[in-house]
Amino acid sequence: MLLVRKGHVMIAVKVGGGKNINWDGVCRDIATLLGEEQIVLVHGASVRRDEIASRLNVAVKMVVSPSGVSSVYTDQESLEVFLMVYAGLVNKEIVARMHRHGINAVGLSGVDGRLWQAKAKKEIMVKEGDKVKLLKGNLTGRVEAVNTELITLLLQNGYLPVISAPAISIENEIVNTDNDWAIAVMAESLGIKKLVSLFEAPGLLRDPDDEGSLIHHIDKSAIDEYLPFARKRMKKKVLGAKRAIEGGIESIYWGDGRIEHPVLHALQGCGTVIC
Amino acid sequence: MLLVRKGHVMIAVKVGGGKNINWDGVCRDIATLLGEEQIVLVHGASVRRDEIASRLNVAVKMVVSPSGVSSVYTDQESLEVFLMVYAGLVNKEIVARMHRHGINAVGLSGVDGRLWQAKAKKEIMVKEGDKVKLLKGNLTGRVEAVNTELITLLLQNGYLPVISAPAISIENEIVNTDNDWAIAVMAESLGIKKLVSLFEAPGLLRDPDDEGSLIHHIDKSAIDEYLPFARKRMKKKVLGAKRAIEGGIESIYWGDGRIEHPVLHALQGCGTVIC
Repeated sequence: MLLVRKGHVMIAVKVGGGKNINWDGVCRDIATLLGEEQIVLVHGASVRRDEIASRLNVAVKMVVSPSGVSSVYTDQESLEVFLMVYAGLVNKEIVARMHRHGINAVGLSGVDGRLWQAKAKKEIMVKEGDKVKLLKGNLTGRVEAVNTELITLLLQNGYLPVISAPAISIENEIVNTDNDWAIAVMAESLGIKKLVSLFEAPGLLRDPDDEGSLIHHIDKSAIDEYLPFARKRMKKKVLGAKRAIEGGIESIYWGDGRIEHPVLHALQGCGTVIC
Repeated sequence: MLLVRKGHVMIAVKVGGGKNINWDGVCRDIATLLGEEQIVLVHGASVRRDEIASRLNVAVKMVVSPSGVSSVYTDQESLEVFLMVYAGLVNKEIVARMHRHGINAVGLSGVDGRLWQAKAKKEIMVKEGDKVKLLKGNLTGRVEAVNTELITLLLQNGYLPVISAPAISIENEIVNTDNDWAIAVMAESLGIKKLVSLFEAPGLLRDPDDEGSLIHHIDKSAIDEYLPFARKRMKKKVLGAKRAIEGGIESIYWGDGRIEHPVLHALQGCGTVIC
């Protein structure tokens, strides 16, 4: 394996963009793990994005695909907000915090070095009530290839890559992209076997309103059966997990990003384990 | 020299944040130069920053030092705008544009990998009318050291580093910083001998309102004598140039960023040459 140092495994860690994520806890756990493992971090920033979009009077337009997956419709104005909040504000705040915990972090977007190469989807089908219609001028894409050399270069020189959307299209235009899908493709390209995903819940819940209804274990061959339990953003996590499994991931750990040791706790199997 | 490939020289290029900069021209010129030279690019984003700050109702507060140099006072709110526009929006737009011109660009802020390490100046002296007073809570710093290993790593692997403020303090807090000073320190650390700086004027003008009053040549030992011709932002460029000369830069080319070949034209000595 290109990337694995002797005795080292590689873990991809995704942290959602919720406002109650315990980032100092994430940093401490990563600092602990870096002694033994190599880590690639991907982060969201949805709450800050919504807040800045609202202050700028840019509408965050949610659309629903014919199969019922909701996502953000991205026009030029919302792509600019996305760039500002994900690749600028939140990415650099995480990088600085990592450094305060002694971690040599470098922040990158999917645009840098064509890290996340996406196929643009300029037209998307969306469901509006009972109707399905074609929406044009969409600036999103699905990640299909990854610049593994750039990530390898940073890892081998002791840097922690801190990565966020957007991605870059084949035509070198900036496109918004789904982080959960992108991390799955990246994990496959890098031969990563473990994926941790943290958000503001203990894991996948049978009842999204009841944190006591945690699903502890999902057999990776049966992931499709759990799609009905996933609402809103969780749907994308399930689809991302499916893509990751198809790409060779051996185990996925969904865990609570709000607790004292978010990463370690998830890796101990205390959230939802898919294996 | 650590960084110079056989037969290659290194050039630091700074491009200001004006709205009429011909970025496609800058990209084309850099693509031409990359055959022969290694380049490190630093960019501003002041016009977009002012525009976004205004839309967010964040006041851009200008302060004047006792010696008459004006700069932006940075509190938490304005630092966030700075991060969004410099490290997010503008940096990534430049990186994507470079890729459209076939240049393998990677965008970094001074925070990433502690690229630009600054000494924080939490308190600054400012002139208000005839009075000088102490202003606290300032989030700026002056770059004193550079992570040359990270830049070298990218250059040696064929990437163009596209860098912008902010910087990171010794205490690993994000601090706003002066790009012109930072590029001078970076040039010294990397042993760079040539510095190009582009903005929205043909060079330094005797009369800032008359583009025909271009100063063609400045002897580097006499740079102090030209400070009186520099108004507003140009003052910082003169001070940055002075710092660059003290650090071993052999020639500085100030040129017009609005023309067809901004970088090549400046390097041909058609703007203001300091040597």
